[in-house]
Amino acid sequence: MISKNQLKLLRALAQKKYRKQHNCYLVQGEKNILELFAANMPVKQLFASPEFIAAHKDKIIADDIVEADEESLSKASTLVSNNAAVAIVTMPEQSCIDTSGLVLALDGVSDPGNLGTIIRVADWYGLKQIVVSQDCADHFNPKVISATMGSFVRVNVIRTDLAAFLADCEGDIYGAYLGGQSVHKTQFAANGVLVMGSESHGIREQVAPYINQKITIPAFGGAESLNVAMATGIILDNIKRQDYTNPQ
Amino acid sequence: MISKNQLKLLRALAQKKYRKQHNCYLVQGEKNILELFAANMPVKQLFASPEFIAAHKDKIIADDIVEADEESLSKASTLVSNNAAVAIVTMPEQSCIDTSGLVLALDGVSDPGNLGTIIRVADWYGLKQIVVSQDCADHFNPKVISATMGSFVRVNVIRTDLAAFLADCEGDIYGAYLGGQSVHKTQFAANGVLVMGSESHGIREQVAPYINQKITIPAFGGAESLNVAMATGIILDNIKRQDYTNPQ
Repeated sequence: MISKNQLKLLRALAQKKYRKQHNCYLVQGEKNILELFAANMPVKQLFASPEFIAAHKDKIIADDIVEADEESLSKASTLVSNNAAVAIVTMPEQSCIDTSGLVLALDGVSDPGNLGTIIRVADWYGLKQIVVSQDCADHFNPKVISATMGSFVRVNVIRTDLAAFLADCEGDIYGAYLGGQSVHKTQFAANGVLVMGSESHGIREQVAPYINQKITIPAFGGAESLNVAMATGIILDNIKRQDYTNPQ
Repeated sequence: MISKNQLKLLRALAQKKYRKQHNCYLVQGEKNILELFAANMPVKQLFASPEFIAAHKDKIIADDIVEADEESLSKASTLVSNNAAVAIVTMPEQSCIDTSGLVLALDGVSDPGNLGTIIRVADWYGLKQIVVSQDCADHFNPKVISATMGSFVRVNVIRTDLAAFLADCEGDIYGAYLGGQSVHKTQFAANGVLVMGSESHGIREQVAPYINQKITIPAFGGAESLNVAMATGIILDNIKRQDYTNPQ
């Protein structure tokens, strides 16, 4: 059974300030929680239905397991449909940025759904990290975790002063703009940086001077723009398809 | 001022049964409404703030214009943030399917946000129509219209019995699967059909027999799948990039 205090904590962890205070975040839903166990991540507490516990008892790795009925789990969840399980997970320490391969960097992507979708597509294309500006959506927000569909366990998100990071980068820094060079005709460097701008402002003034290659997804119709997550996925596909023709 | 009856109608049009009954749908927000005027679409009634009317008076084409304050507009809107304008638009008659070029077909895509995002990316890649199975999300749903970011004026959505349509198609019918041929290595026909399956079930049994080319976006990392809108955008990019190398 979920106690009153536990329920209070679960609800509090939907907010950034309490995540910071407790150094924990929430993971909800079967798919995301099974990914946690598979990745051997530090689950402090698992609240789960008897069915979930029975079905996955060989996989569960958690310091503490609390059995709860589906109604209490739904009440404890910040997501609309979740009645299987909720986990409280210790926040990892932030890793260093690895600049040995392609680096994806986000400038002010503030929508949690977009950030989660970007983490998922970055994982699809084999990226192990994403660099985000300080004002990007909090990557421990339950909506972000949910939208990653489990990819949050494989992709490190590193929050930093983006302009300062780019100032130190050598080599090609690609930025997605309207009116740049077509991604269909760009030879991407294997260890470049790809910068994607925010939903409403694109790549901002303080970051723009570091972009040395403006790139664009060619448009064939009337839409003025693409969603930032969609654009990220399409550009990553264009970069990764080169691996067949330009083996490193 | 928005009258009580007008407010009742605006609220009712958020539901499919009332849209059908009144043969109208809602368009909300500045970007989408300006696209309506630019496309010369039949706006029956426009509810707008004095600022919106003043700013766009040369562009507004509507049978009836109702000036309203932002508070009433917010109340009348089904979207979270909309205080500029709401339009009631007459539903178009359904067009016939044009099979002379690439046809995008959706099998059971039920999430309105996904359908809207697919309409937007289809517009980006120059598609004029999308064929949808009867059980896809209603394309006049305000959430769909909103997610299209104006592209709903350029892309006809044609709702039909998808299996029956495909049974009549000649030529290449591509279906997005896990484990098909890589889209990076597929030579797409210029007038093929691309079928995308639903979020939870993929391409379903009644449609699968008509697919004669199973295709896949190659994965380089650990994510198990991509969102259907994302996958549609990436595959369209792969199809359209051929236009440079294989001019028709």
